[in-house]
Amino acid sequence: MPRSKVDLELLKLGERTAIARAISLVENDESEELLQAIHPLTGRCHRIGVTGPPGAGKSTLSSRLAQHYRRQGLQVGIVAVDPTSPFSGGALLGDRIRMAEVELDAGVFIRSMASRGSVGGLSRKTTEAVDVLDAAGKQIVIMETVGVGQSELDIAGAADCTLVVLVPESGDSIQAMKAGLMEIADLFVLNKADRAGADQAVLALQMILHFRRDGGWKPGVLKTVASEGSGIQEVVSSIEQHRQFLGTGGRLQDRRRLRMEQRLRALVAGRLNEDFWNSRRSALLEKQLDAVMERRVSPYEAARALLADSPAGNP
Amino acid sequence: MPRSKVDLELLKLGERTAIARAISLVENDESEELLQAIHPLTGRCHRIGVTGPPGAGKSTLSSRLAQHYRRQGLQVGIVAVDPTSPFSGGALLGDRIRMAEVELDAGVFIRSMASRGSVGGLSRKTTEAVDVLDAAGKQIVIMETVGVGQSELDIAGAADCTLVVLVPESGDSIQAMKAGLMEIADLFVLNKADRAGADQAVLALQMILHFRRDGGWKPGVLKTVASEGSGIQEVVSSIEQHRQFLGTGGRLQDRRRLRMEQRLRALVAGRLNEDFWNSRRSALLEKQLDAVMERRVSPYEAARALLADSPAGNP
Repeated sequence: MPRSKVDLELLKLGERTAIARAISLVENDESEELLQAIHPLTGRCHRIGVTGPPGAGKSTLSSRLAQHYRRQGLQVGIVAVDPTSPFSGGALLGDRIRMAEVELDAGVFIRSMASRGSVGGLSRKTTEAVDVLDAAGKQIVIMETVGVGQSELDIAGAADCTLVVLVPESGDSIQAMKAGLMEIADLFVLNKADRAGADQAVLALQMILHFRRDGGWKPGVLKTVASEGSGIQEVVSSIEQHRQFLGTGGRLQDRRRLRMEQRLRALVAGRLNEDFWNSRRSALLEKQLDAVMERRVSPYEAARALLADSPAGNP
Repeated sequence: MPRSKVDLELLKLGERTAIARAISLVENDESEELLQAIHPLTGRCHRIGVTGPPGAGKSTLSSRLAQHYRRQGLQVGIVAVDPTSPFSGGALLGDRIRMAEVELDAGVFIRSMASRGSVGGLSRKTTEAVDVLDAAGKQIVIMETVGVGQSELDIAGAADCTLVVLVPESGDSIQAMKAGLMEIADLFVLNKADRAGADQAVLALQMILHFRRDGGWKPGVLKTVASEGSGIQEVVSSIEQHRQFLGTGGRLQDRRRLRMEQRLRALVAGRLNEDFWNSRRSALLEKQLDAVMERRVSPYEAARALLADSPAGNP
């Protein structure tokens, strides 16, 4: 078992190499034993989701938030699941250089997760990477995703507090947001607010929010110019207000329990699937595929035939 | 069984009410029997995926393609899975009006699929809606999705020919595309090509394409101004060239077989999951959740405990 490569004591102390190795185990699907060992150490950090369309300045905002929390003496982790994020290597050189300041700070650990391959797997691995950072003593962990796909929304929504970042030019895509972003946002950030149309965009957002079903918490709309650091204090204050809102009446626990339920269901689904596809069933799949492609059998009939080949306890 | 509501003979003739009812059955998960009945009639239409960032003009391009095929005397279907698509009700009034021309043509059937809820389910339902249109005699079916999320990419990629639509301003997001769009594109369309920067964008795309692994087919980059109908003929020609490329050496069959394999695997996974969560296991889930939230048990241990409660043949 490669867990031996991760020194748990060093991980708990937040040692960078230990964290990096632990997350590599997560990425390589070799982390089950490790995650079991660190589970009692999790549930302590505040998880902040940052999502929005490409180019909204999510990474710059995340960096500024990280800097702010660092100045408060807090340990910070960033997990970026976003092909356009400079943290993930997707952005232009200029962005990379701007990020360097944060990356060089030993109190901030940044890790990007690849968005290729199985999305279900990505969601799980992101959560597990955040667990590692949690166990390593990070008090704030920021999860950055690009928010258009449903599954990426799911990742961002799996936070204690979800920030949706927009820019004045997003006017048209406010329409798009109705289809997902509105539901998961705990706070809207209108970034690049020094550009034309900022006030109208804020107004439009507030109008849409007016129609949102009331769950007790009213998401605010804040203006920032993250590249210059302006408005960051207000964002941090709102995150703190939301945290206090969650803290009363067990709302935070309810939210985390729901998230954990989804996580358990996904783990079970993954394992059921892995167990099902033994070599005999894989061979049967090829035969059924032949039949379906020749239109002798419908996809549902083929699926049923595969499921019927399920000798109990004899996979 | 509500299949009785769909008259198969009328569906085969392409009658609109029959198609609409059939797709409603798909949306309500009541279509298994229907899909079994129509399966022998599927596999005949050419499936064109249209994807790209919000605001790239995917719907306008889809409408123009539909018009073009209509003039060739072909029957056309459009399935829109895109919260920003006017077909899906996401866009502004102006777009809606522009689409009316196509919508009023009896030879074009347009249906939007909601992107809420389970993405796995969405992908399946989209494919099944295309199957319905296929059985109803549509020779061309266009699947329109917004291309940033992985799962939405999967839907677009599940076509015989996948068009990625960009605009000159997408410059930055070409970076984003590296993470998915590049892999699935059979053809790039630079829309709104009358805007500044169009030629540079084409050049940038061609440079990136130069590094693409060669699978025999080199995706071209075409310029269009879909709102004015310019460049559409060239897009149709390229789709036809790609179709001929697929037609040689059984490539189309290979591609469709791979797609069908993914579809069967998804059907099996869905059924395994449904069968697993009986009432006893759902109750056990609550107990395990308690233990996980109290940090007595890790998520993996809880999942294992749930899976262990799997008395063979006695779900």
